[in-house]
Amino acid sequence: MKFTTYLRQGAPRLALVDGEDLVDLNDADAQAPTDLRAALRAGVDLQAAGRRALEAGTRQPLAAVTLAPLVPEPGKIICLGLNYYDHAKEGGRDKPEYPWFFFRAPSSLVAHGEAGWLPKVSTRFDYEAELAVVIGRTVPRHTQEAEALQYVFGYSCFNDMSVRDYQKRTPQWTIGKNFDRTGGFGPALVTADELAPGATGLRIQSRLNGQVMQDANTDDMIFSVKETIALLAEVLTLEPGDVIVMGTPAGVGQARTPPVWMKAGDTIEIDIERVGLLSNPIANEAA
Amino acid sequence: MKFTTYLRQGAPRLALVDGEDLVDLNDADAQAPTDLRAALRAGVDLQAAGRRALEAGTRQPLAAVTLAPLVPEPGKIICLGLNYYDHAKEGGRDKPEYPWFFFRAPSSLVAHGEAGWLPKVSTRFDYEAELAVVIGRTVPRHTQEAEALQYVFGYSCFNDMSVRDYQKRTPQWTIGKNFDRTGGFGPALVTADELAPGATGLRIQSRLNGQVMQDANTDDMIFSVKETIALLAEVLTLEPGDVIVMGTPAGVGQARTPPVWMKAGDTIEIDIERVGLLSNPIANEAA
Repeated sequence: MKFTTYLRQGAPRLALVDGEDLVDLNDADAQAPTDLRAALRAGVDLQAAGRRALEAGTRQPLAAVTLAPLVPEPGKIICLGLNYYDHAKEGGRDKPEYPWFFFRAPSSLVAHGEAGWLPKVSTRFDYEAELAVVIGRTVPRHTQEAEALQYVFGYSCFNDMSVRDYQKRTPQWTIGKNFDRTGGFGPALVTADELAPGATGLRIQSRLNGQVMQDANTDDMIFSVKETIALLAEVLTLEPGDVIVMGTPAGVGQARTPPVWMKAGDTIEIDIERVGLLSNPIANEAA
Repeated sequence: MKFTTYLRQGAPRLALVDGEDLVDLNDADAQAPTDLRAALRAGVDLQAAGRRALEAGTRQPLAAVTLAPLVPEPGKIICLGLNYYDHAKEGGRDKPEYPWFFFRAPSSLVAHGEAGWLPKVSTRFDYEAELAVVIGRTVPRHTQEAEALQYVFGYSCFNDMSVRDYQKRTPQWTIGKNFDRTGGFGPALVTADELAPGATGLRIQSRLNGQVMQDANTDDMIFSVKETIALLAEVLTLEPGDVIVMGTPAGVGQARTPPVWMKAGDTIEIDIERVGLLSNPIANEAA
């Protein structure tokens, strides 16, 4: 089953994607949640709500709606750096023995189809194709790998767009990863039951103006989804609607000779097999 | 004026602090907000609501209530590393030319009086006395220093408790700063009008079991509050209820010979002149 979040009268609403159609969950059932994070926190059976919506909901063409970031306001967006060995190598780094975790804030998110913002203060604007994991239920602290995947609600695409000079102003990458409208997230979530456990074995690509820039497989991740969840459970409570962004493979713009930076007018696509195609035009920041 | 957040029937509620009394804002006015972030986002005139509550609200002894983290679920908690030169030096670092920004998640917060959690997986548990800034109104992008302080609602105390071995597992500090119940925040917010602009000139201390461990002045910060807001406005949108945690002075446990680590049974206090006294017992993690 596929869920997405779209804008209706300016407010994000949860919907189901059925082929080329969008089906509003709340239209079919006034008790149904309008927000993915709130629905997960409340323990709503979203698969059941989805089945009811498929029978009774109003349909509209997916192409006619404006999407919002898949989870508009996650409690945590936890990102992994250097989680593909070939990408670590292209950046001159060793294979990490522990994930390089950093956080994004919700204010950095941008929806599928919405413009990613080239900052006023930098030209070093790069793309990063990543698999996003959406947590469905609270993960008990110290959950082990073998138990970890049951807490995953589903998977989506993420573009961890990075402002490289700010990322490297200090050893802390956070600020270069948190410019407004740089975290592409969507277009839809595919529930975990539709993919191999941990979303392994999926081709992951980025394409800049149609040209393939990154081309790898989720099998190449150093820390798998289950291992990452278990490592995080040593530290903190993963909550419903939290997002884990699993790192990017080789081929980013900064590692090329000469470097490739995104500019206004470009289109950047993240394509993950069976998960979706996330596309963002790039525009000058309009804040 | 002083605001705080306390627990009533398990849910956080906004209140005013008047001397030794707590005055619930919502008791005095059913339209008044119950949540500090929501109130700020809605543009509620909290000073006016506070004055009404002081006249009409029900009073109870502050000592009789259980507090919650001052802003229970901020959209962003932005922390500065190495923002006091003497602390940078004690860690073997140069004076930074740009703040070492990293983020905390709301799941790491702990209220005044609540136990800070010594993790199961580490014994290297350290304290950090810090000034917290709460944003009152959306800061327009590219706001300059001279305009920055008008967006500050007030100030509070923060204890940026750090799990040093996790902090240093990779160059990204984030994970060592995000263990559950390690971000002490409170007890109350003092509105900006009651302090010097940017909360300068205030003595800031930490005391472990009554012994002074850190003793400095907010004048010693390398990046001032207004400079920090202006630097952040280059990058992202600071929103109502966002929190900036301004870094810690020298005297942390890891820089001592031998190192001092907090253990179960300890009490750690953060004391900022005219802002408040934040106290947390330390207990073994109970997750």
